[in-house]
Amino acid sequence: MKKFTITSRNKVNRVPKRANYDAKTLYAILDNMFVCHVAFILDKQPFIIPMAYGRRGNKIYLHGATSSRLMKILKSGIPVCICVTLLDGVVLARSSFHSSMNYRSAVVFGTASLVEEKKKNAALKIITEHIAEGRWNEARKPNFKELKATSVLEVMIDQASSKIRTGPPLDEPEDYDLPIWAGVVPLNLLAGKTETDPLLKMKLRIPESVKRIRKEFS
Amino acid sequence: MKKFTITSRNKVNRVPKRANYDAKTLYAILDNMFVCHVAFILDKQPFIIPMAYGRRGNKIYLHGATSSRLMKILKSGIPVCICVTLLDGVVLARSSFHSSMNYRSAVVFGTASLVEEKKKNAALKIITEHIAEGRWNEARKPNFKELKATSVLEVMIDQASSKIRTGPPLDEPEDYDLPIWAGVVPLNLLAGKTETDPLLKMKLRIPESVKRIRKEFS
Repeated sequence: MKKFTITSRNKVNRVPKRANYDAKTLYAILDNMFVCHVAFILDKQPFIIPMAYGRRGNKIYLHGATSSRLMKILKSGIPVCICVTLLDGVVLARSSFHSSMNYRSAVVFGTASLVEEKKKNAALKIITEHIAEGRWNEARKPNFKELKATSVLEVMIDQASSKIRTGPPLDEPEDYDLPIWAGVVPLNLLAGKTETDPLLKMKLRIPESVKRIRKEFS
Repeated sequence: MKKFTITSRNKVNRVPKRANYDAKTLYAILDNMFVCHVAFILDKQPFIIPMAYGRRGNKIYLHGATSSRLMKILKSGIPVCICVTLLDGVVLARSSFHSSMNYRSAVVFGTASLVEEKKKNAALKIITEHIAEGRWNEARKPNFKELKATSVLEVMIDQASSKIRTGPPLDEPEDYDLPIWAGVVPLNLLAGKTETDPLLKMKLRIPESVKRIRKEFS
């Protein structure tokens, strides 16, 4: 099984028992969400932008307007850090110090490069299908003008780490005698009732791709 | 009402009608979540770390282990970018190009500085109360050793922007005639059933602070 090399860059220093460097764990976190945070540097200032993404193998795909600042900067091949965090709960320990969150987070280091024109469509499909499997073939595909207006970036995952916390609070041994309630409030990202566009002109059934999103977040 | 100055750093270039620079909108987003993404630069490499936070006035508070890399770096007063994103739904347009997300995101630029020893407790209270109002007084407060092991950072919000997308898809006029379903799958972060720590030694009722988290995410 693929494992990412551990260096000072991706090494999890705090609570290392929660860290993980295998690709399987990382990909599982990446595949459970479709909004990531992308950090990059411009004029010695760090920037973060939340972005949609898709994953295929050891690569992450991002897209944006060709005219956008981010795309102009990133296509020059600068280092990026991409983070995906799934918040699973609030951990209320008996002590403030040990109160925490349950979460699964993935941190990826890589360099963004521009996907060439003829491979753009395939890369956009990866992003669309990552969000809603099957939607690419249902929706109207990008036309020439739209493809031109869109840049797609490919980030090879050079290094990465995952960090996961699960379960109840862990308090200091003597604190278990305190009359303080402790436990977890689980948090889940859940899909609500699908809202059909009020401007839909004809009676159409909700497609399987959309039902699948609801199932994934149920 | 306080508004953040717009410069090239915080200006939202893409879809500017979704952008907002007033403090009220920004604070509302920040107050709706308690996990943020913090970006900083180390050796010309961008890093992101998901962190708990609290807000008081125009300041964001972060905490971490005094021994951690992040705290060691950030306390030297380097620029940070902090992003909070609330994902509200998947927007399925008739065209792939106009498919999108509904979201509320806040991007903050500032410089982290170390909270001095005697103000640390008050700053930790802000973070705890941001997550669970009332919990500070219920839980065991940090002792001397724990306070020493914890660093707290204060980030004055120098510049910021919010970006919000709501509502149904917006397609090209001619696409409304296509027999393609369009709409929104709403997503909500929701609290599940509270899980009392199985190691709780006595029968204690779930406190109001914890019930409040459930209400906030209901």
